[in-house]
Amino acid sequence: MGGDNAPREIVAGTLAAASQFDAHFVLVGDQKQIEPLVKGAPREAKIEIVHAPEVVAMDEPPVAAVRRGAVTSMAKSFELVRNSEADAVFSAGNSGAFLAFSMIRLRPLAGIARPAFATIWPARNGPMVVLDAGANVDCKPEWLVQFAIMGAAYSHAVLGVDKPKVGLLSIGEEESKGNELIDAATPLLADAPIEFAGDVDVIVCDGFVGNVALKLAEGAGEYIFGALKEAATTSLGARIGALLLRPK
Amino acid sequence: MGGDNAPREIVAGTLAAASQFDAHFVLVGDQKQIEPLVKGAPREAKIEIVHAPEVVAMDEPPVAAVRRGAVTSMAKSFELVRNSEADAVFSAGNSGAFLAFSMIRLRPLAGIARPAFATIWPARNGPMVVLDAGANVDCKPEWLVQFAIMGAAYSHAVLGVDKPKVGLLSIGEEESKGNELIDAATPLLADAPIEFAGDVDVIVCDGFVGNVALKLAEGAGEYIFGALKEAATTSLGARIGALLLRPK
Repeated sequence: MGGDNAPREIVAGTLAAASQFDAHFVLVGDQKQIEPLVKGAPREAKIEIVHAPEVVAMDEPPVAAVRRGAVTSMAKSFELVRNSEADAVFSAGNSGAFLAFSMIRLRPLAGIARPAFATIWPARNGPMVVLDAGANVDCKPEWLVQFAIMGAAYSHAVLGVDKPKVGLLSIGEEESKGNELIDAATPLLADAPIEFAGDVDVIVCDGFVGNVALKLAEGAGEYIFGALKEAATTSLGARIGALLLRPK
Repeated sequence: MGGDNAPREIVAGTLAAASQFDAHFVLVGDQKQIEPLVKGAPREAKIEIVHAPEVVAMDEPPVAAVRRGAVTSMAKSFELVRNSEADAVFSAGNSGAFLAFSMIRLRPLAGIARPAFATIWPARNGPMVVLDAGANVDCKPEWLVQFAIMGAAYSHAVLGVDKPKVGLLSIGEEESKGNELIDAATPLLADAPIEFAGDVDVIVCDGFVGNVALKLAEGAGEYIFGALKEAATTSLGARIGALLLRPK
């Protein structure tokens, strides 16, 4: 029920996923709004609706959202996972609340202090995993090591990379060092059970830097596409626009 | 003498500047290499060469570069400013060494703890000043306030913005907070003699975040242009390529 154009786009995404994956989908939220949107689902799709009367607001403080109890769609979703009625939970909603629910209602794996948001970035040699993209704005060096291990596991299991290589996001060609956090994490990562070097498949950073990076890359893309669109008054511009809208 | 394709591109830039500005230019470096490159200068250009036999290497530790004394082109350039024989120094070379020379040989203005690298970013409503873009990887909150004041002064004096508005680079729409540094700097900036709010003309951040942002925006641009260039086997692609190389 959260995020841009919810629940329409979230249901549309679920229908698209249902046509590709043989999985059971549970849509949690306002039944009245969701039901008509699911009408177009293919007959064989396994889609179930679980009603939740309330919604976590996008600007709601995370702890307040957790305290409201299992009346919101986000809280109900987490209860399904907690009670083993679902295996995973997806949300386009309030990311701070999502993090709080995952910490408080599900708890991290043993040895993991904090969850991280992992994002998949396009790159010349295939997709890369970048984490943390915004869950933890201030990190301890050992958290970066845990993110590295989780990111490598994701790269291997989901993207099929045989032995994922992990790098710390740092700066400078002539400067030999990053900031204090990066300098402290570097020797820890060298000792971690991951490949740390080379052309990387996984990039690790704190959630502040990762979120700035994510928004900036999006912003740069929008800026360039916007500038090209402005040229779209010419017929050449129109043809470029068409090309951009249908890449490969 | 430092940076990519030096001294050729640096001299070419100087000649371009000499055709636009009524200023006196001093090129500091290897006279033998520079002299033939200056040959094409227009007769009226005021360009002088000051010989320096050595060059600060791009990977040289900054303090080592300062200790070598005034034999390098970078050291000589700073001496010219220190002795009031020049008003400003430009370099495409080792940025860490440049920072060290500016701190040690020139000293910051009163009330300014550290210099910052300011960059000009294209944006929909005109250019923005972004600083620090990499001089200080770990910052104190009060340094960000000083960067804000310097950035606003630059925006006003160089870009002609009447009352520049300054913003802190932070993240999140629903999250109300940045990281510890941003949270500490926010109330200080609200009290500083600058306009802090609204659609900004100046963006302030620490040098680690600013440098990641800069490289990422460049990287995103290169990625998108690279993808478009790959399409350049078609005649449409070739025409797009020409368009991209000659924006406006």
